[in-house]
Amino acid sequence: MTENTDEKLAAPTYPFATLPPEPTLAKPVRVLVLGGGFAGLEVCHQLDDPRYAITLIDRQNHHLFQPLLYQVATAGLAGTDIAQPLRSILSEQKNVTVLLDDVQQCDLDAGQVRTKHQTLGYDYLIIALGAVTGYFGHDEWARHATGLKSLNDALMIRRQVLGSFEEAERLGSEPHDEALLSMIVIGGGPTGVEMAGSLAELSRQVLPGNFRRINPAEAKVYLIEAGPRLLPAFSPELSEYTRQRLENMGVTVLLNTPVQAVEAHTVKLTDRTLRARTIVWAAGVRANPLTSTLKVPTDRAGRIAVAPDLSLPGYANVFAAGDIVSLKDPKGVVVPGVAPAAMQMGRHIAGVIKKDFTLAVKARGLPAPVPRAAYTYFDKGNMATIGRSAAVASAHGLSFRGFIAWLMWLVVHLLFLVGFRNRVIVLWQWMYSYFTYRRGARVIIGAERPQTEA
Amino acid sequence: MTENTDEKLAAPTYPFATLPPEPTLAKPVRVLVLGGGFAGLEVCHQLDDPRYAITLIDRQNHHLFQPLLYQVATAGLAGTDIAQPLRSILSEQKNVTVLLDDVQQCDLDAGQVRTKHQTLGYDYLIIALGAVTGYFGHDEWARHATGLKSLNDALMIRRQVLGSFEEAERLGSEPHDEALLSMIVIGGGPTGVEMAGSLAELSRQVLPGNFRRINPAEAKVYLIEAGPRLLPAFSPELSEYTRQRLENMGVTVLLNTPVQAVEAHTVKLTDRTLRARTIVWAAGVRANPLTSTLKVPTDRAGRIAVAPDLSLPGYANVFAAGDIVSLKDPKGVVVPGVAPAAMQMGRHIAGVIKKDFTLAVKARGLPAPVPRAAYTYFDKGNMATIGRSAAVASAHGLSFRGFIAWLMWLVVHLLFLVGFRNRVIVLWQWMYSYFTYRRGARVIIGAERPQTEA
Repeated sequence: MTENTDEKLAAPTYPFATLPPEPTLAKPVRVLVLGGGFAGLEVCHQLDDPRYAITLIDRQNHHLFQPLLYQVATAGLAGTDIAQPLRSILSEQKNVTVLLDDVQQCDLDAGQVRTKHQTLGYDYLIIALGAVTGYFGHDEWARHATGLKSLNDALMIRRQVLGSFEEAERLGSEPHDEALLSMIVIGGGPTGVEMAGSLAELSRQVLPGNFRRINPAEAKVYLIEAGPRLLPAFSPELSEYTRQRLENMGVTVLLNTPVQAVEAHTVKLTDRTLRARTIVWAAGVRANPLTSTLKVPTDRAGRIAVAPDLSLPGYANVFAAGDIVSLKDPKGVVVPGVAPAAMQMGRHIAGVIKKDFTLAVKARGLPAPVPRAAYTYFDKGNMATIGRSAAVASAHGLSFRGFIAWLMWLVVHLLFLVGFRNRVIVLWQWMYSYFTYRRGARVIIGAERPQTEA
Repeated sequence: MTENTDEKLAAPTYPFATLPPEPTLAKPVRVLVLGGGFAGLEVCHQLDDPRYAITLIDRQNHHLFQPLLYQVATAGLAGTDIAQPLRSILSEQKNVTVLLDDVQQCDLDAGQVRTKHQTLGYDYLIIALGAVTGYFGHDEWARHATGLKSLNDALMIRRQVLGSFEEAERLGSEPHDEALLSMIVIGGGPTGVEMAGSLAELSRQVLPGNFRRINPAEAKVYLIEAGPRLLPAFSPELSEYTRQRLENMGVTVLLNTPVQAVEAHTVKLTDRTLRARTIVWAAGVRANPLTSTLKVPTDRAGRIAVAPDLSLPGYANVFAAGDIVSLKDPKGVVVPGVAPAAMQMGRHIAGVIKKDFTLAVKARGLPAPVPRAAYTYFDKGNMATIGRSAAVASAHGLSFRGFIAWLMWLVVHLLFLVGFRNRVIVLWQWMYSYFTYRRGARVIIGAERPQTEA
């Protein structure tokens, strides 16, 4: 446990001004968790005790393993392979009630959460609603450049990519828009690298041989990054290795290339304009828009500036966790928006809540101003996959690349994927793809017809 | 081979009035196949010869294994598990070009097919566009009762079913419409039986334990059949066995119960009205509507009344195959709309085409009026699954039911499923479901929010 250090920084104290709710079976403490991602689920798991009556609200019925979403978008996996019903995950934990609903407003002063369908009270509230695709203030770009945050995003990209190849085959030698077989990925972080690599493999290794009139390998894949290198969270050597591997796979990597505007099938750069039927936005996220209504400090991306114990300033019984949080931890590390951090935060919050009640019980119901522990990020390392047998990883000062990093990536992602059934299926799909150079989910789904226009 | 008997019934003769197209590599015979179902694919497979230049048109990019669609609808399988990209299936067969397009009109006199995007000529045309859900002239019912013919149909039903349980859990003890946890399946054929059985298992075996405020097992499942028994293609004993098994599983089976009208969440019967959030229409299909524009005889369901050789009357170089065909074979058997019949027809048509050219080559280019072979249906038997370890099967005068029939059903469906990858995944999903009583695809997909109103 690395989270409970440096207690002096932690400001908030025991949250209840008057008598605390008794942590008894007869009148359990009401814990309301918003969001069934890694953070929200971890809070639930850690509070597996009938004295806590947990309500978990999510607007999807499933927990989504976002790190593999790019493989759904590029036809390697089915949507259901990386999604697990929240009810099923929590079926054995009888103190959790899962509700499919849409959170619309949190009135922290009144202690109420309003959803699309009802209003709920709580003793503790955990806001773990995650992030959405962020367009740096240019929301109008969203129509033309699809983000990668939900299953519907992934299926939309899959439809666009596969639909473009289908249209090109239909047109054959007829003159057609050069944009048709071009794909642009904006953003050189892990998601952008993984997307671009996977699109290059799809067009170079998977699709050729399946078409008669076009050569899918001639499709252009661009990866556009505003900064000077890919994967800025890694060492410059790994960034350069990644760039070279992607270029060898057929990706055109453009560094120091800020995007000026995104229009229909068009990305405007400083000195030129690129056109593409498929444009994927992997350049940024911002917090769930709900944060703007909370009347608490947020950063530029809308993330909640939480107190060191992860509670909201002024609301000691309200916490935030996961991608929705902006925090520099006691060691001065800016906590990144990754799954391990979300899980650590969830665990920390559950610990704080449990400790609140230990103290309450000790004090025989009298609230005492005890400082809470601060959350400290434990960095397990970073990894990103580039393509077949190629990945980069860095952890605890060590760097890995190539096949060994790729194997590490496989093992870690299989372990973190929720559900034994899903693990077996994903492993099988990966083995199948590895040995046959095929992808198993090349199915255009979700629209009655292929969408030739975005 | 049972198809080439009874040649005396076959009317059409060699199709080309003038010199036939030379079956050479330099000028291959153009075969245009409309539809990538079992019939269309079989034609392609049988004409694996570079002297035939085959174009296969489908408006989906995948071949769909319709017999398992109900498992996608009831969250047992992912859509991609029963769909295989047509390009991938035909990747090794270099004489086939697959085009994703929408057939809009066939001008048989001009020898042209017009699609959404282009106009195509042919030497031979095979119309294998299959069937759509048929509402007996009440197309307005389609809005309220979903058929089960496409992946989108299945995902829509899945959304409705899972969304209803979610809404009921949210409402908890609040008063709510009794229709919420009712499901109605209309039509007592194999699809209706399989749907009803699977819905009963979902609510009785899979979902309980996952909900806190409702008991999913209290959901009502109705199976409505206009005729006196379920599964009329089977023996009365098997029909009765099926009815009893379904009733034991919790399905309310209503026989001799014609549907008078379908409205929003409402099915009107002769003497009463049933209400349900989910209404599945499994009562009938009709041919692809395109047949009404062909100017050839069709039956009441719009199916093409083909000649004994499966050509269209008056168009000896145009064939129809699969569910789009209405035919009483030389033995007097009405050919059913099942996958084995579709595959047999595809094989028969390919045989006729090949024989045409053998004759043409023999006659050194001079057309000779040789009667063609008639297609005869070879009945491999019928099977339908009711639920866990229960199915019925009949073949060649033998009847099977219970566990043995269920095992037969499993093996046959795995064998006919296209693609090794899919077979392994489906087998794994079935094993997982069998031993854990879980379903792996309980993911609401395809709509940003759960649809609480149909």
